[in-house]
Amino acid sequence: MSKPSIPQGTRDFSPAEVRKRQYIFNTLRPIFELYGFQPLETPSMENLITLTGKYGEEGDRLIFKILNNGLHEKKEEDKTKFRLEIDKVLSKSYSSPAVTERALRYDLTIPFARYVVMHQNELAFPFRRYQMQPVWRADRPQKGRYREFWQCDADVVGSTSLINEAELLCIYQSAFVQLQVPVVIKVNSRKLLAALSEICSMPDKMMDITIAMDKLDKIGWVGVANELKERGIADEGIWQIEKVINVTGNNDEKLAAYSDIMQHSTSGIEGINELSKTLAYYQELMGGNGPTASNIVVDISLARGLNYYTGVIVEVVCNHPDVKMGSIGGGGRYDDLTGLFGLKGLSGVGVSFGVDRIYDVIEELGMFPKQLAEGTQVMIVNFGGENETYALNILQRFRADGIAAEVYPDAAKFDKQMKYANKRGIAYVVLPGDEERQKAMVSLKNFTTGEQKLLSVAECIGSIKASN
Amino acid sequence: MSKPSIPQGTRDFSPAEVRKRQYIFNTLRPIFELYGFQPLETPSMENLITLTGKYGEEGDRLIFKILNNGLHEKKEEDKTKFRLEIDKVLSKSYSSPAVTERALRYDLTIPFARYVVMHQNELAFPFRRYQMQPVWRADRPQKGRYREFWQCDADVVGSTSLINEAELLCIYQSAFVQLQVPVVIKVNSRKLLAALSEICSMPDKMMDITIAMDKLDKIGWVGVANELKERGIADEGIWQIEKVINVTGNNDEKLAAYSDIMQHSTSGIEGINELSKTLAYYQELMGGNGPTASNIVVDISLARGLNYYTGVIVEVVCNHPDVKMGSIGGGGRYDDLTGLFGLKGLSGVGVSFGVDRIYDVIEELGMFPKQLAEGTQVMIVNFGGENETYALNILQRFRADGIAAEVYPDAAKFDKQMKYANKRGIAYVVLPGDEERQKAMVSLKNFTTGEQKLLSVAECIGSIKASN
Repeated sequence: MSKPSIPQGTRDFSPAEVRKRQYIFNTLRPIFELYGFQPLETPSMENLITLTGKYGEEGDRLIFKILNNGLHEKKEEDKTKFRLEIDKVLSKSYSSPAVTERALRYDLTIPFARYVVMHQNELAFPFRRYQMQPVWRADRPQKGRYREFWQCDADVVGSTSLINEAELLCIYQSAFVQLQVPVVIKVNSRKLLAALSEICSMPDKMMDITIAMDKLDKIGWVGVANELKERGIADEGIWQIEKVINVTGNNDEKLAAYSDIMQHSTSGIEGINELSKTLAYYQELMGGNGPTASNIVVDISLARGLNYYTGVIVEVVCNHPDVKMGSIGGGGRYDDLTGLFGLKGLSGVGVSFGVDRIYDVIEELGMFPKQLAEGTQVMIVNFGGENETYALNILQRFRADGIAAEVYPDAAKFDKQMKYANKRGIAYVVLPGDEERQKAMVSLKNFTTGEQKLLSVAECIGSIKASN
Repeated sequence: MSKPSIPQGTRDFSPAEVRKRQYIFNTLRPIFELYGFQPLETPSMENLITLTGKYGEEGDRLIFKILNNGLHEKKEEDKTKFRLEIDKVLSKSYSSPAVTERALRYDLTIPFARYVVMHQNELAFPFRRYQMQPVWRADRPQKGRYREFWQCDADVVGSTSLINEAELLCIYQSAFVQLQVPVVIKVNSRKLLAALSEICSMPDKMMDITIAMDKLDKIGWVGVANELKERGIADEGIWQIEKVINVTGNNDEKLAAYSDIMQHSTSGIEGINELSKTLAYYQELMGGNGPTASNIVVDISLARGLNYYTGVIVEVVCNHPDVKMGSIGGGGRYDDLTGLFGLKGLSGVGVSFGVDRIYDVIEELGMFPKQLAEGTQVMIVNFGGENETYALNILQRFRADGIAAEVYPDAAKFDKQMKYANKRGIAYVVLPGDEERQKAMVSLKNFTTGEQKLLSVAECIGSIKASN
């Protein structure tokens, strides 16, 4: 028999990993709830037709499709049709409903839009939901990129108020403070990117400019300028963009400078107003006093890829000298997402937490709480016979007091039992031998210090609880 | 555009449903942890070869298979081979690796066995794990049967001690007491079913007898007797089985009577000893006093289908006159599960919680905690202008005190805002108008009683917390 394995790009999560991942989810969930967001879960499978055409051509190719069942039960004429469909699938990137009708969830946004449209009459708008579930993509696996990974999204649909943007900034702050991850939150507006194309007098080049600007972090201004030139932006335009890029100062100073440069661009003025209003709301939420948190930074080079955003956009990066990691969260405002499924005119705004990357950052910073690793705190040694009965009699008293405990299930050799406890990393061992049983007491051994004490069960429980 | 929908047999979980499901998982998880079980999560996808042949012919057919990606990128000669493979798939129930290499998890047991074999050198045995994840089966959907559903399993591998069986009974008791679901836990041993075939002098008929006995609840003894006859059991044998079925009394009395009838069957004696030892261990764990919990019942007709069990088996049914529901949990001892992947001689025992059915039972009994439905407790009305600023200033104070709160994001008409709060089922509305703002106070309106009071923010928070 060949050795068993798991598919490329997927992962088993060991007990220690599950506990750490749960810690992240259990930190985020109550924050979403405090902010009035409601949990939603959608099926792992969607109808393929729900997903295709929503993620671009590349996305369509990366969707995992589920083979229809019962192919061999088809009638002979249907088998002939099926073979013709297979020929189409083989000749181009095409998904035949005869071959596959269902696919695995590719993100949480499209299923959310689909849910809102299906339940529009029951829902109270604005509808705020959060969702923490795995998604699947047939991407080439590489370090930090998996074929099954977790997304964690919070969105509000049905309100254009910038209070929503400000609330989502508060959620980011609150989450990363609690997770003890220092971050910078970059904000921008798609409208400022549109304004750049207007001040270059090339309004149809917005996408080209966005794509080039998105690379500023990686290739610097000279690289971006070259790319802009290749993409057909005139020197005069590039010079205008350089003026914008060179603006420095705090957020208010930057926005004032942009106002000046973009005074003739309608979308520029709109974008600036939206950003300054969002920051003002944020400040009011934070109590109204003092400057905007210094870790929220207006960054005009922020582009957030080629997606559906139309207004304010946001991205979170870890701000620690030892951590090299791209974005660990991002989001923005989008118009008309539900329009894809026939419900027009519903504006939305959302943010996403990159759970797998956040996990890696917390691991790198050593910020996972120590007690997460523990699991079982006490193992009761099994000396067999009457001592086994005694062990079973006292076992539940530990659990009743909230101490995770187990008895070694067999009266195995003492060494074997201690080896097990050691390998499991169990902190305390309880030894109920003849002497202890006759005195109705136990010996408690601390695995770290090696110290051993004769105690009553109640004292033993007290001692363990005191050490937690 | 056609109306969006979700695949047959799958479900969206609304906010209220997610909270109730979380309540079940959050009840079970700490119990498993208290008993020293460790969390494990395996990928949604397994290599198809890991799953095929493990669930019988019917099971193989019901596995959801994932279509290989990039078919159109194959070389021409590979496409020719692919067409030949497709012909095989169409002619019989066969899964070609050219078409599908991966499949969705069908249960949690086989992935667990696969994990144990892959990590046998790192794990400390006995290894106790729990796992709560969805599984997928291409079964025909019907009421209460879904194509995506949740399993929740706890297993111990690497120990033959019956203390494990007793601990799992304790876990069942503890879980259903906490969930407030009255249950009967039926126990039996596969060895007693083997003994029935021995006392009929037809040891090769064990499976036939098991299949027939499994139907006792549904078709009664006359039905079972007829089926036994059809399956070739002689009248003398059927009469022996009837004697066993007719045994009544408490567990000790039943086991004593079986001892008598099965005294010449080695497996019968073994099975009886195992059951009585398991029950004795259970009693010792429960403090050693009093009779065995009256809701644990030895039931010789319990068979648990045609699976891999070899020793003690167990099944949980809801014991409430208003609830008609089959088994809501079950499990048993199996030998050599990891042998499927090349690791021989590792005995295991496990139990499973039927989360979807348990959900339905708790719903039917009305036992979900009332506060689960709530979500947002307070909505702050948005009166716009300076009052909006005042609303934002006080909003975070509620959240800082653990009260889920939201502000209506737009200064919409009062009626519209109240309609929203009402539809959401929000218990309290805070009204920060001109008067309130000038006094640095708020009006708190209780949606249930209609009562409205002018309070400071601190009093307001105190009043809401007192009502929780």
